[in-house]
Amino acid sequence: MKTSELKKKIAGEKAVDSIENGMTIGLGSGSTVYWMLRKLKEKVDSGLNIKGIPTSKRTEGWAKEFGIPLTDFSETTKIDLAIDGANEIDTNLNLLKGGGGSLVREKIVNHLANRLIIIADDGKLCNQLGKHHLPVEVVPFGWKATARSLEQLGCSTTMRLQDEQVFISDNGNYIIDCHFGLIENPNKLHEQLKLLVGVIETGLFCNMTDLAIIGHEEKVELLR
Amino acid sequence: MKTSELKKKIAGEKAVDSIENGMTIGLGSGSTVYWMLRKLKEKVDSGLNIKGIPTSKRTEGWAKEFGIPLTDFSETTKIDLAIDGANEIDTNLNLLKGGGGSLVREKIVNHLANRLIIIADDGKLCNQLGKHHLPVEVVPFGWKATARSLEQLGCSTTMRLQDEQVFISDNGNYIIDCHFGLIENPNKLHEQLKLLVGVIETGLFCNMTDLAIIGHEEKVELLR
Repeated sequence: MKTSELKKKIAGEKAVDSIENGMTIGLGSGSTVYWMLRKLKEKVDSGLNIKGIPTSKRTEGWAKEFGIPLTDFSETTKIDLAIDGANEIDTNLNLLKGGGGSLVREKIVNHLANRLIIIADDGKLCNQLGKHHLPVEVVPFGWKATARSLEQLGCSTTMRLQDEQVFISDNGNYIIDCHFGLIENPNKLHEQLKLLVGVIETGLFCNMTDLAIIGHEEKVELLR
Repeated sequence: MKTSELKKKIAGEKAVDSIENGMTIGLGSGSTVYWMLRKLKEKVDSGLNIKGIPTSKRTEGWAKEFGIPLTDFSETTKIDLAIDGANEIDTNLNLLKGGGGSLVREKIVNHLANRLIIIADDGKLCNQLGKHHLPVEVVPFGWKATARSLEQLGCSTTMRLQDEQVFISDNGNYIIDCHFGLIENPNKLHEQLKLLVGVIETGLFCNMTDLAIIGHEEKVELLR
């Protein structure tokens, strides 16, 4: 196994220790969550009784493959714990997310959860967010005007594509990737972006993370 | 003709005076816009060269019926003028809109337009917005959690229905009607709502209107 995969695996598996019988769990997206789900499968097979709410169709597919029970989010009034990955994590546990295009569902689930645990390999840690582009989900109608509004906040923009077609999110919207460079104040930038007409959500997740489990080569590091 | 229809008609027709040859025009939604479009048809038939961008499927249908040329918004880089209706207009020309469910497209078009003219009968004027419910467009995923977030800002909520089914906006989303009562500070409330996870747009249109044309029984009143 590649070193980065091993780091993801030990972080993902560690998170399963926080899952208790009877919980409703938000199941995040991405390659580190995959390892969490594989470990969770073992516990479910041994009799752990939980319900999962997947934040992407890919995660839903993995959960079904592993026999992890799912529940309909529209029937749910509370989420005890969400476990999710991130593209970047800063020293204040603010996150840059959405590389996989599931930022809206991830944010809705993580926001509702009583507790949010982020799992990642140590390559995701940074002093300041902004090494990667920042994904922003927008209403398709008038997206070019929305892209211009985004650029007026000081970034260049790229329309997210997939197989040379416009990428459509699970919610039927477009994603514009914004290149701001390093971000001084993530929460302020998030609010500026979210207030723009046509913007649905941003990939900046501020003041939401309760615990980050970081996988290193031979240990996990816990950040609170 | 009923008095209220007559008032809408004279306001709608007056707005057409502001349309100049070569303009790209945002075509708003609602019953007053209908009268504007009927008058615009006469000008187009007489040789006026304009392009329209409709903000709802209903308006698009009327424009096609009247032979008003339309253009694809995704190909458009500027809108010279938008003409739209409103459910309520306060003395600062802030608007409460979205009774017809087209608030997102209306706001995108009106926001992009160089100039916004609002047309309405005098029954829409008020000292303070909030007599009607305030529509808020939300992401369908997790809408119950979003409704609870809205309620925490001090309103009761009703899911918008149509023919006993959930109403789906032109953008594929849900609309939650919020009952706040009279609204002290429309711009502040708009920002509080828009920042909520799951919220796409609100029916409060603040600091956008350049001119309101108000139809009375025998005259129009111009408010700037």
